[in-house]
Amino acid sequence: MAEEQQGDGYPTGLGTSDADSIRLLGKDLAADLLGRVSFGELAFWLVAGRRPEPGETRVFEAVLVALADHGFTPTAIAARLTYLSAPDALQGALAAGLLGGGSRFLGVTEDTGRFLAGALAEAEREHGALPGTSAGGADEDARWDAVAREAVGRQRAAGQLVPGLGHPVHKQGDPRTPVILRIAEEEGRRGPHLRLFEAVGRVHPEILGRSLPLNGAGVCGAALADLGFHPEILRGFALLARTAGLLGHLAEERERPVAGRIYNAVDRAAVYVPPSRG
Amino acid sequence: MAEEQQGDGYPTGLGTSDADSIRLLGKDLAADLLGRVSFGELAFWLVAGRRPEPGETRVFEAVLVALADHGFTPTAIAARLTYLSAPDALQGALAAGLLGGGSRFLGVTEDTGRFLAGALAEAEREHGALPGTSAGGADEDARWDAVAREAVGRQRAAGQLVPGLGHPVHKQGDPRTPVILRIAEEEGRRGPHLRLFEAVGRVHPEILGRSLPLNGAGVCGAALADLGFHPEILRGFALLARTAGLLGHLAEERERPVAGRIYNAVDRAAVYVPPSRG
Amino acid sequence: MAEEQQGDGYPTGLGTSDADSIRLLGKDLAADLLGRVSFGELAFWLVAGRRPEPGETRVFEAVLVALADHGFTPTAIAARLTYLSAPDALQGALAAGLLGGGSRFLGVTEDTGRFLAGALAEAEREHGALPGTSAGGADEDARWDAVAREAVGRQRAAGQLVPGLGHPVHKQGDPRTPVILRIAEEEGRRGPHLRLFEAVGRVHPEILGRSLPLNGAGVCGAALADLGFHPEILRGFALLARTAGLLGHLAEERERPVAGRIYNAVDRAAVYVPPSRG
Amino acid sequence: MAEEQQGDGYPTGLGTSDADSIRLLGKDLAADLLGRVSFGELAFWLVAGRRPEPGETRVFEAVLVALADHGFTPTAIAARLTYLSAPDALQGALAAGLLGGGSRFLGVTEDTGRFLAGALAEAEREHGALPGTSAGGADEDARWDAVAREAVGRQRAAGQLVPGLGHPVHKQGDPRTPVILRIAEEEGRRGPHLRLFEAVGRVHPEILGRSLPLNGAGVCGAALADLGFHPEILRGFALLARTAGLLGHLAEERERPVAGRIYNAVDRAAVYVPPSRG
Repeated sequence: MAEEQQGDGYPTGLGTSDADSIRLLGKDLAADLLGRVSFGELAFWLVAGRRPEPGETRVFEAVLVALADHGFTPTAIAARLTYLSAPDALQGALAAGLLGGGSRFLGVTEDTGRFLAGALAEAEREHGALPGTSAGGADEDARWDAVAREAVGRQRAAGQLVPGLGHPVHKQGDPRTPVILRIAEEEGRRGPHLRLFEAVGRVHPEILGRSLPLNGAGVCGAALADLGFHPEILRGFALLARTAGLLGHLAEERERPVAGRIYNAVDRAAVYVPPSRG
Repeated sequence: MAEEQQGDGYPTGLGTSDADSIRLLGKDLAADLLGRVSFGELAFWLVAGRRPEPGETRVFEAVLVALADHGFTPTAIAARLTYLSAPDALQGALAAGLLGGGSRFLGVTEDTGRFLAGALAEAEREHGALPGTSAGGADEDARWDAVAREAVGRQRAAGQLVPGLGHPVHKQGDPRTPVILRIAEEEGRRGPHLRLFEAVGRVHPEILGRSLPLNGAGVCGAALADLGFHPEILRGFALLARTAGLLGHLAEERERPVAGRIYNAVDRAAVYVPPSRG
Repeated sequence: MAEEQQGDGYPTGLGTSDADSIRLLGKDLAADLLGRVSFGELAFWLVAGRRPEPGETRVFEAVLVALADHGFTPTAIAARLTYLSAPDALQGALAAGLLGGGSRFLGVTEDTGRFLAGALAEAEREHGALPGTSAGGADEDARWDAVAREAVGRQRAAGQLVPGLGHPVHKQGDPRTPVILRIAEEEGRRGPHLRLFEAVGRVHPEILGRSLPLNGAGVCGAALADLGFHPEILRGFALLARTAGLLGHLAEERERPVAGRIYNAVDRAAVYVPPSRG
Repeated sequence: MAEEQQGDGYPTGLGTSDADSIRLLGKDLAADLLGRVSFGELAFWLVAGRRPEPGETRVFEAVLVALADHGFTPTAIAARLTYLSAPDALQGALAAGLLGGGSRFLGVTEDTGRFLAGALAEAEREHGALPGTSAGGADEDARWDAVAREAVGRQRAAGQLVPGLGHPVHKQGDPRTPVILRIAEEEGRRGPHLRLFEAVGRVHPEILGRSLPLNGAGVCGAALADLGFHPEILRGFALLARTAGLLGHLAEERERPVAGRIYNAVDRAAVYVPPSRG
């Protein structure tokens, strides 16, 4: 984390306004942004501090779409239960849902980006350079496989899981993974993180002794890292995507409520068992 | 709010999945949505339960862009202070920021939509029909002005403010307002809520005795209502837009932190004064 | 809400510190408070701005104990699901649980306090004085019954429910109610709010045509109001009490987790039904 | 984390109820708990799963009192700003404040408990037994000093700080520390965690080369650990204590608001500086 800037003012490159104009990211909001940039493009810009190119926006929005909703996840259920309890504070129900966006559920995107970024940094330190990310070819793939073997081997030696590998439901392959890879390729954004992630997919069975799918949340993390985002901020995009999904759940809960029935089902199944702690 | 559906299952029109596919909104997520719909379009779809037409998406995304950030608002400051205190839980900082999205700051969008929807319902009840929303003309405007006079008059008689009128900074006019109106007009989405809101802008000085600008958060509420959204859900879109803005603040806080200085400035200015309560 | 104080400093009657001492509420924290005041006493003092008398503390702590936990409520389930998703951020799980403390579940305490305070103010306006709150007697009760009849009648005429009446489970009487009343009586704190609440319990059948129990959350609101707290802050005490209960749930979830099974039960029962909205 | 229990029901040792009674922790809430246990005692019981002895309750409540408020901390400011933005949802303002209860500010209590518990486990593994915790004497102190030297040395060798050492304001000694130690001693609860913490205070200068005070949040963590609580739950008590402090701030904000002035001061000091990222 950078040092606190000294001085009296609070610097920001985001929104400022005076009586006549509203500026955002150094642009005139009304004249330059409204109707001219998509919401996804703006979200990229706000976080990256630079305007994305059209190909970057397409990859970025595909990632957000991929992460938006997965049905009755713990976060969606928590949001609906909170809306049941406090229907007058929609922001509270939304916030309750987002608070589940931590290490376990939404964390894969961040963990994968962090794992890949670390492995790339390590490879560069050791070998002075990374394999290329051109169209490919067997030779280039082989060099990425070597980097992947080192990275997976280090995780295994440390007794840690490889982030982005495996999925509780999509055991034969997460359908999002090949599509995100294809879109990144189409837009010229299949960079080192994605190349390494694919290589992990090829080499891990020989090291781990079993074959696991590359999951969709993981490929999203790799794609975001190839767009230049720091691992620490990746969770934020998973949360932004999930915000749209949670709004969908809350709108649906208004029309076809289920939270009351979920609560009743749990409450009726409660069994008193004396505490075992102490 | 609708009745709880009876039966064993929990119905949802959002995400479902099995081993081979992920479905969202009845579509195949990987084949039909990734790379084919923008994130804004998906957010509309998730809440409305129907796919928007391209013109609707453009108006909708313009609204989200208009509401994304306003600099160092209380919500942005709260998010930054929370990130300072708990940097390992980005979801908490984001949630803290969103929790300020209540009645006072982000509430204008919702309040304006609710006020206009109520006024339209009242006008239809009283007069059997609403004025048209075709290209316009002085005659059509005059009929909208009549509806607006009744609505503003009722608020005044009840001693209540007219939502969407006035802005603490943009006293001569909020620069977002004419642009949102123009985009809605271009896309054929300048419907009854926007028409009535414009009429409120024309007639309120004669009733209230002073001239106030139509503010940008209000015109966003009117535009969303013309897209078919219920007032109760409008706050959700203001929150979604603000999520992107808050992520921008948190990314900026990582790079150029100011929260520690804000905290110190407040703490240093603390003055002990005995409690006056009791 | 009071006016913002002008000037440069930020006044507070709570905590301040310098290199050698920590002061809280104008006292020396280490010398005067640690080991000398209970946590409940401190909570009262922090909100009221005055130190409670011992009898007040006993009533106050009884109320907190009464409101602390009700098993698998929506708020407890939401907290557990959030802990499942983000076990590294206990504060997020706790916050998610508290966010359900809104109008519907935890709201009864506040609503009852507000209803009673309003009815007392109205009675004082109309009749110049309130009945006494001495030991009682049939005559005093009869005067409270008259106030209660007016208050219940007004709610009925306005088509509104009487807060604090009725309970979904304890249909023959909430066991907390007589005990809170007894403790308040023992400590000389059975003031006008509790007297009026009891009168509501006596007279409502003749007005509403059916007999409902005085619920425990309602009597807690009345007791807190008799301790001098403003209705707007009553929800805060329900939240404080619930914080302890939620910590109990999270500690139990660590040892005997159920959230994963709740999630699975809901997810397995999901049924895709096309959206009905639009 | 323990295994999910199989079977149909959801076990809980907390609250259950039927039409006639409310049970909490296996007791009759109305008959056995109301007016008979303090709120602090109940909080201990809810988390520990066992009723504390009176001496334990006194230590526990002293810890809660010590941690309740520290004036205009980032969490208190965030809560006040959220209340300014959304005054109708007190639960949101409280939750926003608690969300800052993460690794940095409220984390010291937990970190110290974890550090001490780890050092005790390590010492027991290496030496087969721990020094005694009787009244003391130079010999016993010397044996604790030896354990502390190993623990502090390991932290230093790993390049990590010793949790609970040092305070930004109370550089010559945190006034809470000796009082918590004295209360624990009075109640016979000055166990191995506190003994080791004191020893850390004695030996660290010879290892670290400078003398730092034992801070109050750290001694609270040690005291809670000596009461038998697992380090993972300690943060929860810091949050419970802080809930009372935050309610104090919100009640004060109602009467003597400062959040609007804080917001204005920050907003006025905003300076546009182009983003440096990319």
